[in-house]
Order: sequence, then C-alpha cells, then structure tokens
Amino acid sequence: MSNQLCVNKSRLCKKIDRLAKIGAVEGNGVNRLALSNENKEARDLVVAWMKKLDMTVQVDEIGNIIGVREGMTDAAPAMTGSHLDTVGPGGRFDGALGVLAGLEAVNSLNDQNIRTRRPVAVTVFTNEEGVRYTPDMMGSLAYSGGLPIEEALLIRGTDGTLFGEELDRIGYAGPMKCGAIKPYAYVELHVEQGPVLYRKHICIGAVKSVMGISWQEITITGKPNHAGTTPGDLRHDAGLVAAKIITFLRDLIGSFGENMRATCGKIRFYPDMINVIPGKTVITVDLRNSDEMFLEAAEQHLAAYVREVSAQEGVVAAFHQLVRLKPVHFNTNVVEIVRQKAKGLGYRSCRMLSGAGHDAQMMASLCPAVMIFVPSKDGISHCPSEYTKPGDLEKGANVLLNTLVHLADQHDEL
Amino acid sequence: MSNQLCVNKSRLCKKIDRLAKIGAVEGNGVNRLALSNENKEARDLVVAWMKKLDMTVQVDEIGNIIGVREGMTDAAPAMTGSHLDTVGPGGRFDGALGVLAGLEAVNSLNDQNIRTRRPVAVTVFTNEEGVRYTPDMMGSLAYSGGLPIEEALLIRGTDGTLFGEELDRIGYAGPMKCGAIKPYAYVELHVEQGPVLYRKHICIGAVKSVMGISWQEITITGKPNHAGTTPGDLRHDAGLVAAKIITFLRDLIGSFGENMRATCGKIRFYPDMINVIPGKTVITVDLRNSDEMFLEAAEQHLAAYVREVSAQEGVVAAFHQLVRLKPVHFNTNVVEIVRQKAKGLGYRSCRMLSGAGHDAQMMASLCPAVMIFVPSKDGISHCPSEYTKPGDLEKGANVLLNTLVHLADQHDEL
Repeated sequence: MSNQLCVNKSRLCKKIDRLAKIGAVEGNGVNRLALSNENKEARDLVVAWMKKLDMTVQVDEIGNIIGVREGMTDAAPAMTGSHLDTVGPGGRFDGALGVLAGLEAVNSLNDQNIRTRRPVAVTVFTNEEGVRYTPDMMGSLAYSGGLPIEEALLIRGTDGTLFGEELDRIGYAGPMKCGAIKPYAYVELHVEQGPVLYRKHICIGAVKSVMGISWQEITITGKPNHAGTTPGDLRHDAGLVAAKIITFLRDLIGSFGENMRATCGKIRFYPDMINVIPGKTVITVDLRNSDEMFLEAAEQHLAAYVREVSAQEGVVAAFHQLVRLKPVHFNTNVVEIVRQKAKGLGYRSCRMLSGAGHDAQMMASLCPAVMIFVPSKDGISHCPSEYTKPGDLEKGANVLLNTLVHLADQHDEL
Repeated sequence: MSNQLCVNKSRLCKKIDRLAKIGAVEGNGVNRLALSNENKEARDLVVAWMKKLDMTVQVDEIGNIIGVREGMTDAAPAMTGSHLDTVGPGGRFDGALGVLAGLEAVNSLNDQNIRTRRPVAVTVFTNEEGVRYTPDMMGSLAYSGGLPIEEALLIRGTDGTLFGEELDRIGYAGPMKCGAIKPYAYVELHVEQGPVLYRKHICIGAVKSVMGISWQEITITGKPNHAGTTPGDLRHDAGLVAAKIITFLRDLIGSFGENMRATCGKIRFYPDMINVIPGKTVITVDLRNSDEMFLEAAEQHLAAYVREVSAQEGVVAAFHQLVRLKPVHFNTNVVEIVRQKAKGLGYRSCRMLSGAGHDAQMMASLCPAVMIFVPSKDGISHCPSEYTKPGDLEKGANVLLNTLVHLADQHDEL
C-alpha cells in the first residue's frame, strides 16, 4: 500500500447526501430528469463546489460543465466525470458518484497540495439517461463529435419541450464549443448497476468493455375484437403476439449465453380494455451484447421470430430502431492501470463488462478511456433503493484519485 | 310468409342515424360512456321519441327508462330493450339497435292500429358496458334484484365520480322502484358482436345461452432491475411472467375447445421504461364459457399455471376477482318462438351462444327471456367500425316485432 493517496470518506459521503436532497423522492432516491428544475439546481450546486475548489468552470453548447484544476503544464488534462440527471425517480449514486468522487479527488489534491503535470478536469455530461430526450449519453456523444449541436438543440422531448429551449431556460446553454478541451485520457467511476461485484464480494471492477445496445420499438397491428364473441381461430390478437415476443427474448438470453441481455421494459395495448382483444400493441426491445457479431445475430433472430409469429397470427409488425450502439472496448493499458491502483490500495478487483451505457464509451472515441465500478447492492439501480456501501464508495474514489494522478503525471501516449 | 308484420326499414335506419349523431366519433362510431353528457343526450332523445309514440315513460332509481305501450289488459307486459351507453369509442349498433328496433316495433304497431292483449314495454338499461362503473349490466342487474340500489349509488367510477351523483346530475335518478314492472317475457335484439352469423351467412341467431364470465386482475410483483446489467438468471421479470400468462391463455382456448374464450385485454408495466426490467405488472384476464364446469376448470388451470410460473421466476402473483357470472340458459320455448317467427318471415336462422354479456341474461332471472342476434361484419364490435347491413337490421327488427306481438298476445305461462 506504498505511496497511495486517499480521499476523505466522510466528506465524500456528505457531498453525496447534500446533492441527494435535490429532487429527493421517497425511499432515498432522487428525481432529476435532464434539464428539469431539479437538474438545474444540482448543476448549480456542483458549479459552486467546483469554484470553491479553485477550478475553472466552463459550460459548452450542449450544457456539459467542465471544471479544470490547473496542472504544472497546459498539456491535455486527465479527465473524469459522469452525469447528474436521473431516469425519473432513480438512485442517488447513478452518475452523481462519478461527479462527486471527481470533486473529492480534487479536494484531496488541494488538501495535500499536490500538483500534477497535466490539469485534472471533472466533467458533468448533459442528459446521460436519455429518458426525457433521446438519445441517451447525449452530452458525451456531442462532446466526442457524434452529434451536431444544431441537431441536438432541436430534439423534442417526451413532454413536447425542445431540448435547446429547456437548456436555455435553465441557463446552461454555454459558449464553449463541444469537445474544445480534448482530454489526454478519461476515467469514470460509477456504480455497477448490476449484481456481479455484489455477488462476488469484489469491491472494484475495471471495466474492459461496454456492451453494444440495440433499442427497438415494435408496433404490432392486429384486429380489436370482442373478447367474448371471437373464437380463438378468428383472432388477430396483437397482445398475444407481443407476449410471444417477450417470452422469445428470454429464450434469446438462453441461447446466446451470459453476455446477452434482452428485455421488454415498455408496453402499450390498444384499446387497453378488459373485454377487447388488443388490436394494436407497442413494445420496446432492449438487446445488449459485448460482441457486435452476437448483437447483430440476436437482432436477426428476433426479426425472424417476429415475422414468423406475425404470419401465424395474421398481424403486421413494424420495427423502429431507436438507438444502436456498437460495443466499446476500453484501452487495455488504462484498464491495467486501474487494476494496479486497486492492488496498490489492497482492494480486490476484477476485469468486467458493463451492461449499461455510460459517457465513458463516448469519450473512448476521443482518447484512452476506462471505467471503475463499485458494487450495487442486489444489483438494483434506476430505482430509489439503489445502494452502495460507504466503504465501497470510498474505495472507488481512492482508485479514481490514484488513477487520475497517475494519468495526469504521464508524458507519453498511453 | 303468411300474416307476418313488418317494420319500416328506412325509418328504423333513420332512427339509428339520428341517434348516432350523439357522441359521434371518427369512423362512424359513437362515444357515450354511461352517465356522460352524451349518454344523457341519447336518453333525452329516446324519451322524446317514446312520448311521441304515446308511450308512458317512467324512470327507476338506477336510471332505467321504461316506455310502455298500452295493451288491451293490464297484464304483465311483453318487454324488449337494451342500452344506450358505449365502451368509450364504440359502434353505433351495440345496444342502440335493441332500443330503436323496440321503438320501431311500437311505431309499426301504432301505424297499423294493432292492439295487443298485454302492454308492450321498451326499456333502456343503465350502464350495460360497465366501463365507467363496475359491474357491467348494472341497470338490468338492479332491475332483477341482484344489486341493492343503495350499493349501486355509491359505486365509484374510473374517473373518481360517484354513480349516484352522476345519475342525479344528468337528471335520471327516477322515482320508480327497480323492477316494479315485472315483465311477462323479455326479448332483446342485438348485433352479434362476433363473427359466427357473418361467416355462416345466416341473418338471425336465436340465442340459447349466454356464456359465463370470469374477470380477474392479476398483479405480478418481481424486481425492477437494470436491463443492461442484470443477467438472465438473476432476473425477477414481472413482464416476462405476464407474457407467459398471456400465451397460456391462448393454450387454454386450445385445450378447452371452441366454446372457450380467454383474453388479456389490459396491461401495465411498472416502471414502464425501456431499460428497466418490469418490477411489477398488472394484467386483466377475461375467461368465458357456456358451461359452468368448464369455466371453473379454466380458472383452476390458470391459477395453477400462474403459481408454477411465479415460482419459476421468483415473483409473487395476486389475483383479484372483478366479475363472476355463471352461464345463463334462456327459456327454450321462447328460443323456439324466435326461430318460428324467423321461419315465417323466410329468414335463415340458427340457435347459438352469446359470448358477450347482455341485459337479457339478468332479465332471465325474472321472466322467460331470449335474444335475437343479427350479423356483425367481420365480427367487429366495441369499435367504431362495427357494422351491420341495413337489410339485416330490418330482418332483426321484423323478428323482434313478431316475437313481441306473439308474446304480448299470450294468456298462459310460457
């Protein structure tokens, strides 16, 4: 455990508690949809903290907030960051931990008067969750050049609002060009949001890949008939077809193995009446895999099954692709730095996959990037009962601090 | 075709067209939820028509409207009727046909100066559909003594309103005791709302039984987890369990044969987000059979399956019975009168089942009852595109007229 820096655990927890008061909901959670009043309030608090830590704060055109702690040189900074928005009522750690552990790292460096060669930057990315405005990871996508700002500003939210107008309204339409500060490397601390570390009693995950994501909406059009008078063989039951697709998704997991995810999270029946056979249904499908070949194969299997069952039941199915992201593989050298720092601190770690999308995967197209995961109790996330032990929060922040300092002191390409 | 009475077809169709202007929706349908303003307007029009036909109009405590055409005696009347409320946006014939064909029958008797031995009554029953206020067939249920009026008035609607207050508001909380006029016999004309007559090219169905109905709501509680990070074997997916139940319903139809109906018409996922495994789902199940033994067996099979799949997936399922009605078998003598009248008019007819619930099944506990069905195009009902050919409407009304007169001229018990 030679020469390892440490954060102040109780101060980190206090920061988390304080931020969680904004948009607090029953059950310890928070509700801070992107660009909502609560999201603005959280941003304001973080900006105030950054300034108090003597960081230079800039806001870019899509509302990403970049706080920079000076280095000994003006070389490209070592960057960390995450997000402050939530999926409606969600957990207090998802996103917030990455931002606040970044601030706590800077706080600790300030305390100990440590100067790094490169600046250290902490970034708050806009609209990571993508619940109010599609796509998700919007801020980091724009940062890495994957979404023109003019296009982003015109995105219409689920509540009918314009992204650009709401950004303006909350005062976070900044002057800086997206991606103007190109990082040397990017490292993000996040709760796992899954059960792997918790089940294995391992406190640090060094994420080597983020699963590719395919989000589709399937609209099934059958015939709305009377539930009492229509014999089975004369039905064109769009609800039944939706149900068969949902059970097929579980079979997909079975046949593609443990790195496959397949979920139906949203459903609507029309007319949605107890005594009417659904004439139309709309479902969403969320497919993920760490291997692009398998993800494509899963999409094809699903499409073939939907064709088959639609023909059987005499319904019509239409696919609409909402999101499609290839798997991202992080820089293996940086993954090893994370593992080495964990080892130096005496923490058990493992290489692992992320099944969730994160800003780090967008940043990986700009610079070497990596993520550090800490356990989520019972794997629960996107829900107020999301929980990570204070000891694990501290361990994650310590690995982040030491990784950041290591990166900020490098001269050469990683 | 000796000595058969006939209605005025164009006048019948005009009545239907005129009534369908009230609550008209796109696609030729109507939206007249029970006790809505549109329902009130439809009631007012029918009451005005009854008065114009010299009928004595009375309204009972639950809002049933009874129009009576005098007979030569004060014996118990031959009654027909149906309802004016719809399932949200629905068809223009469902319910309305029975009421308007009853008025047209009276109109034709008036034209031809025909006096019957017994009075002829036309009844508009309140809230047959049961969409806004549960249970359905509420007016006829109360008429036949199956629902105390004090209880009915306190029923809370899906929109939070009190049945009694809304009844008052539209001016149809009448003074007459429910069931004060006990009919000699009841006959109701209705569109089939199913595909049987249409497919068989038969214009008159003499309904011998109404299927029993079991409506249940099943709430499935699993765990809401992240769709990307939760491996298949660690999921407690309430949506998957709902989907498996829905596919099981189709299997129930398969194993119980052509008189079985099993439908899931309504579904909710919670939290209903694309990237969250449903932690809770609520579905409705509509089971029907013309044989009580089979209906009970279907309920038991379903319960056993839900237990099994819930245990498999680690979720908890709770059942809530919403409606339970035994099958109703109509008086076979009256069924034969309907067939004989159809034959006399030169129409093809058949005995058949009703898969839908109707006011006639409630009236069957008070007096001999029967129903006359006419074809529904493609079996479509509970939807604006519901359609019955004018020629079939006329044929149904002719059979109704002749059956009513036959019943109204009887001395003895049927």
